Amino acid sequence: MDLQALFSPQSVAVIGASATPGKIGHTVLKNMIDAGFPGRLIPVNPKGGEIEGLPAVTSVAELPRGLDLGVICIPRQFVLDSLRELAAIGARAAIVITAGFKEVGRSGYHLEQEMAGIAREHGMALLGPNCLGLIDTAARVNATFATGKPQPGSIAFFSQSGALCVAILDWAAGAGVGFSSFVSLGNKAVLDEADMLQWLGRDDKTRVILGYLENVQDGQTFLARATEVTRNKPVIMLKSGTTAAGARAASSHTGAIAGSDQAYGAAFHKAGIIRAERVSELFDLARAFATQPLPKGPNLAVVTNAGGPGILAADAAERSRLIMASLSPSTLDKLKAFLPAYASLYNPIDIIGDADAERFRKTLAAVAADEHVHSLLVVLAPTATADVEAIAKAVTRIARESGKPVFGCFMGSQGVVAGHSILMEAGVPVYQFPEPAIASIEALARYAEWRASPEPEWVEITRDLNEARRIIEEARRWGVREIVEFQAQELLRAYNLPTPQTRLARSSEEAATAAGEIGYPVVLKIASAQISHKSDVGGVAVGLKNLKEVLHAFTDITSRAQRMRPEAYIMGCLVQAMAPKGSREVIVGFKRDDQFGPLVMFGLGGIYVEVLKDISFRLAPLSLADARDMIREVRSYMLLKGFRGEPAVNFQALERIILTMSALAMDFPEIYEAEFNPVLAGEQGAIVADVRLSLSS
Amino acid sequence: MDLQALFSPQSVAVIGASATPGKIGHTVLKNMIDAGFPGRLIPVNPKGGEIEGLPAVTSVAELPRGLDLGVICIPRQFVLDSLRELAAIGARAAIVITAGFKEVGRSGYHLEQEMAGIAREHGMALLGPNCLGLIDTAARVNATFATGKPQPGSIAFFSQSGALCVAILDWAAGAGVGFSSFVSLGNKAVLDEADMLQWLGRDDKTRVILGYLENVQDGQTFLARATEVTRNKPVIMLKSGTTAAGARAASSHTGAIAGSDQAYGAAFHKAGIIRAERVSELFDLARAFATQPLPKGPNLAVVTNAGGPGILAADAAERSRLIMASLSPSTLDKLKAFLPAYASLYNPIDIIGDADAERFRKTLAAVAADEHVHSLLVVLAPTATADVEAIAKAVTRIARESGKPVFGCFMGSQGVVAGHSILMEAGVPVYQFPEPAIASIEALARYAEWRASPEPEWVEITRDLNEARRIIEEARRWGVREIVEFQAQELLRAYNLPTPQTRLARSSEEAATAAGEIGYPVVLKIASAQISHKSDVGGVAVGLKNLKEVLHAFTDITSRAQRMRPEAYIMGCLVQAMAPKGSREVIVGFKRDDQFGPLVMFGLGGIYVEVLKDISFRLAPLSLADARDMIREVRSYMLLKGFRGEPAVNFQALERIILTMSALAMDFPEIYEAEFNPVLAGEQGAIVADVRLSLSS
Repeated sequence: MDLQALFSPQSVAVIGASATPGKIGHTVLKNMIDAGFPGRLIPVNPKGGEIEGLPAVTSVAELPRGLDLGVICIPRQFVLDSLRELAAIGARAAIVITAGFKEVGRSGYHLEQEMAGIAREHGMALLGPNCLGLIDTAARVNATFATGKPQPGSIAFFSQSGALCVAILDWAAGAGVGFSSFVSLGNKAVLDEADMLQWLGRDDKTRVILGYLENVQDGQTFLARATEVTRNKPVIMLKSGTTAAGARAASSHTGAIAGSDQAYGAAFHKAGIIRAERVSELFDLARAFATQPLPKGPNLAVVTNAGGPGILAADAAERSRLIMASLSPSTLDKLKAFLPAYASLYNPIDIIGDADAERFRKTLAAVAADEHVHSLLVVLAPTATADVEAIAKAVTRIARESGKPVFGCFMGSQGVVAGHSILMEAGVPVYQFPEPAIASIEALARYAEWRASPEPEWVEITRDLNEARRIIEEARRWGVREIVEFQAQELLRAYNLPTPQTRLARSSEEAATAAGEIGYPVVLKIASAQISHKSDVGGVAVGLKNLKEVLHAFTDITSRAQRMRPEAYIMGCLVQAMAPKGSREVIVGFKRDDQFGPLVMFGLGGIYVEVLKDISFRLAPLSLADARDMIREVRSYMLLKGFRGEPAVNFQALERIILTMSALAMDFPEIYEAEFNPVLAGEQGAIVADVRLSLSS
Repeated sequence: MDLQALFSPQSVAVIGASATPGKIGHTVLKNMIDAGFPGRLIPVNPKGGEIEGLPAVTSVAELPRGLDLGVICIPRQFVLDSLRELAAIGARAAIVITAGFKEVGRSGYHLEQEMAGIAREHGMALLGPNCLGLIDTAARVNATFATGKPQPGSIAFFSQSGALCVAILDWAAGAGVGFSSFVSLGNKAVLDEADMLQWLGRDDKTRVILGYLENVQDGQTFLARATEVTRNKPVIMLKSGTTAAGARAASSHTGAIAGSDQAYGAAFHKAGIIRAERVSELFDLARAFATQPLPKGPNLAVVTNAGGPGILAADAAERSRLIMASLSPSTLDKLKAFLPAYASLYNPIDIIGDADAERFRKTLAAVAADEHVHSLLVVLAPTATADVEAIAKAVTRIARESGKPVFGCFMGSQGVVAGHSILMEAGVPVYQFPEPAIASIEALARYAEWRASPEPEWVEITRDLNEARRIIEEARRWGVREIVEFQAQELLRAYNLPTPQTRLARSSEEAATAAGEIGYPVVLKIASAQISHKSDVGGVAVGLKNLKEVLHAFTDITSRAQRMRPEAYIMGCLVQAMAPKGSREVIVGFKRDDQFGPLVMFGLGGIYVEVLKDISFRLAPLSLADARDMIREVRSYMLLKGFRGEPAVNFQALERIILTMSALAMDFPEIYEAEFNPVLAGEQGAIVADVRLSLSS
């Protein structure tokens, strides 16, 4: 959708403009005037007359045809009529500031639906309702009722919470942070985060896109838009409602239904979105990305006049993915030539409390020139001998000349305020404490790594789609919601997945014959379409070593199952080969997330998935790198790699099974959930020993 | 040690006082004068005359006998002589600001030792060297060369880093944080963190003690002092050098050798010290503890005019140990009576963007009166209708009247600055963002819980100490450094620990006989005092089911061991009973930390300890609660509790083994390390199947 008329209008009407200070309709008009809006600005008020020196029209119908933007701030009962009138004069965009729609319940929800319908029918770009409005500093548009006024800058921010907008505007004014655009999304009746990503991604004035989200309107569109943007511009998001309590709060206050946190995590990962964990981080990161080049690697050098804070920075770096750089011998020689004897040349480079600006300058020049150093952090304590302003200037010079990202951590308050100003003005991110500085540098390094990562490699999974469809359609015809065991085995074969040798035995004699053919030891499992959780009815016996044990197990399993589940039709037992020795149990599954589609999971069987929650997640479709990373990401990966002399499992076989799960999820939207459990991963290959699929209702 | 003369002197001499601004000797004297020091203040300078209006004496010898405090800021080569002269006139305390001692290497180290000797000999309380000095606001002492000057307050701060002191003083001035005392420890030649804890613990003006440490001088004394204090006053510590890179930096810059992070964690836990993870947290927590009462429980209520920020607070609370309180029905009724229809009554209580001070006041009164609510957080966005000052006053009133801890999160900058001031002045901790507010409230709740926890219960472990001593002395006599297997088994029996049935077999025939007596299946293990890592030489065979397997295993194990370790004396094999079915392998051990003594560890065998590092630590001696908590703290605890229908292990038996390990560590300081591995924990009891002990050299 072309949002030119919304972000950069030639003509704006304020519908509900008022001459009374304190009224929203007054604030919006005043904000537009104060922003220096260069286009045509028309107040609309039934009383007409002049408002803030501008002649008002008495109705929307009197507005010029082809108006770019109408800002609606009138009581709820008049909103829809005004919108229809705007449509009638061919207005191209509208902001509905008025509240009282979806967020207040059923009646509001229906009004909002109607509103969206009008806008869509007439191709009107509609922002809101229930929002603070929109600011575009380059277009000199401030169509909000906020009291603050942002400076121009290269950061764009959109937010699902108007209150957060208010707080952020106020905070940014104090922190000297400027914005290209500032958008309050409100209830997202028409325009949502995906539209913002698309527009801001193409906006030359925007270098970094920030967002605060409580939910995502349309997961697939969001993913597609974000993926287009993130290779060119960093997108940083704060997602709230990530915990149960948060999600309850989110639902009760905007009517938004929060998706599962794992799905959001996987979606952000897939789209290359940087996730902020807290409000302060959102803006720490924004400042870093807006001003600094991306580092060419993870190696950080810390230069400081303060021993303790230097150690704290090293601690924080060690906990991150950054690496404390080892300086090259020639750099060490350079430093030795002028640093005092008590200085510590090893990173963190402690140039001692009596360091002046010149010592900082020479040290920074030497360190920045070292090819092993990818980024620099200057940690300063305002000691008596430190000329903070001169040091700040030395830092800005290195930042300008080195081509590497440079950050300041000037600790303190009054003693460093002048230094903070100099650095901020020169576009060097500066922090009060070491830890957030390190977090920002790490985010830059991660993003650089991600952007440099190769395009995903897609692996074609050969499969018999017709056969697979036949099985699923047959199940649906029979009204079966869960596909287990025998039918599921057929499906596995259609996907060329290796399965253990299996025979259906309808009697204990058949079981004995099958076991003889397969070879001892064997496993017996209850075979019944009605019993999906076999172990709940004691329906599995493993390690049966001889004829006697097989005969006994068959009778035992089938009679208990019939007793416990009298309604079930018991076909008999499946006889299966035992897992090869040394094989490890893993679980591969997917669940269809309402927002983002199939969320594939991987983990080790037993306690690892169920108790330790040691699981990796990705959204389908998966690339080869996704499958590889999923395996390597779990903490129990060491068990697969081989622990205490055990051989490694066959990773290629495991990757193939994960990719097949992804293909299955993409092939059949009617499958709601699927799980291969256990997959027996061994040195030679991997076997899918059991499987369950649920179909959507 | 009585530190009265140091913190609250009647007479102070500045040795090296100077009339030249910019010199340390000038700044110290000036700071003393500016602080309004009410006692006698005497500059010492060889030139004599008058400095800053005070008559100077030309040497230390001229100072009055029984001087309280001498502050030494003269070149290094004169320091020791001055100190001797101070001793000669009977001075009671000294601060050595001069640097160039332990931190510069060997020569400095010896000078510092000499300095400490003089002070100890004469019972002089010596702070430093290489420090910034000391401030006590109540005594109007500022014996530092810092440029900042702290406000009086109830927070005491001591720091091993002078640079951090400088930064913190500067920061505190901007943040309006006041201090009772402010101490730069420097190299800790005599006075260290333990002395500070003792003094500040008894200081009525100090409500909260903060410390920044790079290492601890004397672990046992530190533990003892801290434990005395923390039940009465919160002690909050930031420990740096926690990571490998940080520790390297710490060693190179102060010559301090950082202890292992686990030992520090266990020490802080044992002593009830609250550990801050970052610099900002140190002071966020300090403000909270200095002003608020402790909550009576974990239930938090969040009242807000800002939906999004309210959700963010709920998210943060959910991730913490706090619980979002459920309001009682009567509170809900009260709220319904005056809140607008669109308000959300469920915690977070969203009273909507147009809330005025009166609505805040009534809501807070109702919520604070609810007995299910233990603490309150007010999250405010500076909306157009919010009268921030009036709301701040409403919050301070509730804080004053409710008797419950109350916190503010007033988001923004210029729009909330007046609110921040009102809250800070009234002693209500206020934050810009929700996350640090929640972290502070959580710390208060945890500390309250800890302080309410019962006194530790000590369990007497019955043991034959004489027999145990005999075994260990015999090993020492033989020059053995590791006690394994047979001797170790005897030690286990001396401690009444259950061990599996074991026989030493010197030949394959003896092995067969032993296996027959014990009953199949059995385990064979190589028996040699020189081989402690048995599996490295393939020295263990498990699950031997019959005579043939035992005979074969014996030959196999002994011949391979002799081949791989030709120097070892192979006694034969131990024949042991197999672990009972369903038993789980755990590891119990200890390692003697240089600083804090025996660090006991507990974890599950296999991947859990070695790969997942799923281990709990405590310092010996352990109370019953310690042993219980160690078992329950590991993530894999569920495996012990019983997973998938397995029975729980016998926890009492496991606790007894952990407590015995603690007793063993306390009984024999000559044991450096010990490990019971594996301990077989089953439904009935637990058996120590193998054990290794190392003696100190």
